[in-house]
Amino acid sequence: MNTKKFLLPESELPTHWYNVVADLPNRPLPPLNPQTKEPITPQELEAILPPELIKQELSTERYIEIPEPVREKYRIYRPSPLIRAFELEKALKTDCKIYYKYEGQSPSGSHKPNTAIAQAYFNKIAGTRKITTETGAGQWGTALSYACAQFDIECEVYMVRVSYDQKPYRKILMNTFGATVYPSPSERTQSGRNFLKQNPQTNGTLGMAISEAIEMAVQSEDTKYSLGSVLNHTLLHQTIIGQEALKQMDLAQDYPDVVIAPLGGGSNFAGLAFPFLRENLTQKKNTRFVAVEPASCPKLTQGKFMYDFGDTQGFTPLLPMYTLGHNFEPSAIHAGGLRYHGASVLCSQLLRDQLIEAKAVDQIECFEAGTLFAKTEGIIPAPESNHAIAQVLREVQNARLEGQSKTILFNLSGHGFVDMMAYSDYQNGKLSTHTLDPKTLETSLAEIQALQPPALV
Amino acid sequence: MNTKKFLLPESELPTHWYNVVADLPNRPLPPLNPQTKEPITPQELEAILPPELIKQELSTERYIEIPEPVREKYRIYRPSPLIRAFELEKALKTDCKIYYKYEGQSPSGSHKPNTAIAQAYFNKIAGTRKITTETGAGQWGTALSYACAQFDIECEVYMVRVSYDQKPYRKILMNTFGATVYPSPSERTQSGRNFLKQNPQTNGTLGMAISEAIEMAVQSEDTKYSLGSVLNHTLLHQTIIGQEALKQMDLAQDYPDVVIAPLGGGSNFAGLAFPFLRENLTQKKNTRFVAVEPASCPKLTQGKFMYDFGDTQGFTPLLPMYTLGHNFEPSAIHAGGLRYHGASVLCSQLLRDQLIEAKAVDQIECFEAGTLFAKTEGIIPAPESNHAIAQVLREVQNARLEGQSKTILFNLSGHGFVDMMAYSDYQNGKLSTHTLDPKTLETSLAEIQALQPPALV
Repeated sequence: MNTKKFLLPESELPTHWYNVVADLPNRPLPPLNPQTKEPITPQELEAILPPELIKQELSTERYIEIPEPVREKYRIYRPSPLIRAFELEKALKTDCKIYYKYEGQSPSGSHKPNTAIAQAYFNKIAGTRKITTETGAGQWGTALSYACAQFDIECEVYMVRVSYDQKPYRKILMNTFGATVYPSPSERTQSGRNFLKQNPQTNGTLGMAISEAIEMAVQSEDTKYSLGSVLNHTLLHQTIIGQEALKQMDLAQDYPDVVIAPLGGGSNFAGLAFPFLRENLTQKKNTRFVAVEPASCPKLTQGKFMYDFGDTQGFTPLLPMYTLGHNFEPSAIHAGGLRYHGASVLCSQLLRDQLIEAKAVDQIECFEAGTLFAKTEGIIPAPESNHAIAQVLREVQNARLEGQSKTILFNLSGHGFVDMMAYSDYQNGKLSTHTLDPKTLETSLAEIQALQPPALV
Repeated sequence: MNTKKFLLPESELPTHWYNVVADLPNRPLPPLNPQTKEPITPQELEAILPPELIKQELSTERYIEIPEPVREKYRIYRPSPLIRAFELEKALKTDCKIYYKYEGQSPSGSHKPNTAIAQAYFNKIAGTRKITTETGAGQWGTALSYACAQFDIECEVYMVRVSYDQKPYRKILMNTFGATVYPSPSERTQSGRNFLKQNPQTNGTLGMAISEAIEMAVQSEDTKYSLGSVLNHTLLHQTIIGQEALKQMDLAQDYPDVVIAPLGGGSNFAGLAFPFLRENLTQKKNTRFVAVEPASCPKLTQGKFMYDFGDTQGFTPLLPMYTLGHNFEPSAIHAGGLRYHGASVLCSQLLRDQLIEAKAVDQIECFEAGTLFAKTEGIIPAPESNHAIAQVLREVQNARLEGQSKTILFNLSGHGFVDMMAYSDYQNGKLSTHTLDPKTLETSLAEIQALQPPALV
């Protein structure tokens, strides 16, 4: 009887997060102050982040210890299982071995609590009373709502308006965990009022919601801001996924030839990939890493590597990243949390250095893959996760054409129980193939040309 | 560091189901043919069930082997975790130890696949091409849809109309697993047309949906019918829950003073309780067993022990059970799958013999308990499961009043990600306290008086 689920006992929960910065052949360019175009200082981040997270954001240490109170909360749902996709393999009639790390058993149903819990804790010990944040599809807002409930912190969420209207279940989830949720752009902030003035009918974007959440945070001493992805420390916290997976691949007496994960801001991908990437960089392993993005929000495959803001209003430092421009508005596709205009600094640097690959997939291909996965493996994947599964099917097809077998590992970052309307749209033929208008992209990128520091222009 | 989650490896998956009939001090009365009032014969069940399930339905053997293909499918999500509710205990400031067996990590998000997979398998080997069934809140229909997909059987679900309209996510889930779903009563069956003629505006009931599903099944040789609870074999299959939990309580070096589970038809309760009940009956253990039902559908606490049909049209054998009458229509409460008029024969017999207790709880108390559980333990409970949690809180309160500590084990039978509208209604003050009108109950029970066999009248 072959083992299907490789489980770690709680005693095997990793004690440290892994910081890939320590092992990069090329350090990323620094974040810049938008006014001076000089590298930002830790002090400049104090209005929005607590001290420990600022330290982590700028750290070059290889391993950072996970505090015991955070490990205690992790144990509510971790270690997460590594699962061999026997049923999917059978359906595909493939010799490839397919494994997935399943993050959907967490309180919010995705990998997001891995950083939400850490961020809530480091805020708590710094005396933060309230945290503001943004959320798109709602995965991140749900995770932070739960984490704040655990550490008795108030939580205020700005939710992209189109999601707020179309995904009532996500809002109720956040309310159940005790958070307050506002559709963004809102009338509560100056940024929100600006966005509404420019376009009263706007669907909202993650960039706009970030602006609102930051604006609220900087106004009060004991309120801080929290981001669910993109920043170094969010990627750092997610590496618990890959560190567990390394141990579990050992249990399976196997090792991945290719590691696949969706990429929105980068924390989903980084979480699984970075600990395996370290094995490439330091142990001469030869694994391929594939970040998968939606065809209609393709920063890695069609964006440019430039300095850009993380938000729409321009409150964040300038970050060196693959971007579509911070004013880019993706069309209303079912890509869950992957509708963000830029990729994290670390993932962008890795792509520049060709240490990872990027692929874009269309939403119909994603839901076709996700439906097959549900029928076989018995888990309804989140729309984000469907992007990884679609790429897995492509890898299997390539292996067949090349007459090879390979070991594939992917991040099943969450379940889709709260995203069933997207499956319904797929089943009813309401999804269309979205492509990116080159003119839109050109305009959007032209708008950020002026932000570049002299050295990059 | 205290262990939170007690996990069993797949090699510890039980090899047999436990049949409580073998250990009962009093065997239940037999099911009767409604015409002759004589005990039914196995042959009379052949139109709706495959041979192996008929054998199990009537079996008095203590242990029944789980076929290897069923165990293989169980391994997709089993063994399920036993979890110590440390966070809830802390919030309640109690000395009681609270454990829960969590069945929400299954493909459909509840305990239902435990019998759906077994039933699909025994149908498959008997040559069944298509299975019809009913579903109320949708948990059972989802489970059977998945199980049928695993064994390549067509699945047709009659879903109580009010749920069909109010719970679109459940229908989409079933469609995603490949099933066809009709609102019940429908125009597809003679029973459905009868019900609609009597009341074109009816919300539907489980009893009506069962009638429709049975009517479709008996019309064709290779179509069978499947029930998600009530019948002996469905309870039998669920005992895998309690058998795992026995091993896991051993791992925790503890033993429950009280075992609590929701009761709709009985499979949820039986699944966890029966293996522990065996320890009472054969090992002189002294555990209390509490079945929890909604105050607005209180068959155990306010119903009568009588012979009654399992469905509304009168297609099933007459079953000796606690019932509210097969024409009873519960008000539109958020009790998930607990809105059934009767309790299984086995659970009814146990209550008659005072081997178990029954409690009824109101829906507002349930959602209050469920919300506290979500904020602390990080799992949004299904509305069904909230009934068990409400009773846990009562037990904790009683223990406090009595100055005692006790060990509590309950069945967290499923998650509530697909039931968020019920939480929204709770948060928005839209839930009311429902009580049962005594007149309605009197009328409903009077209607079944004529069904009783001479010996019971």
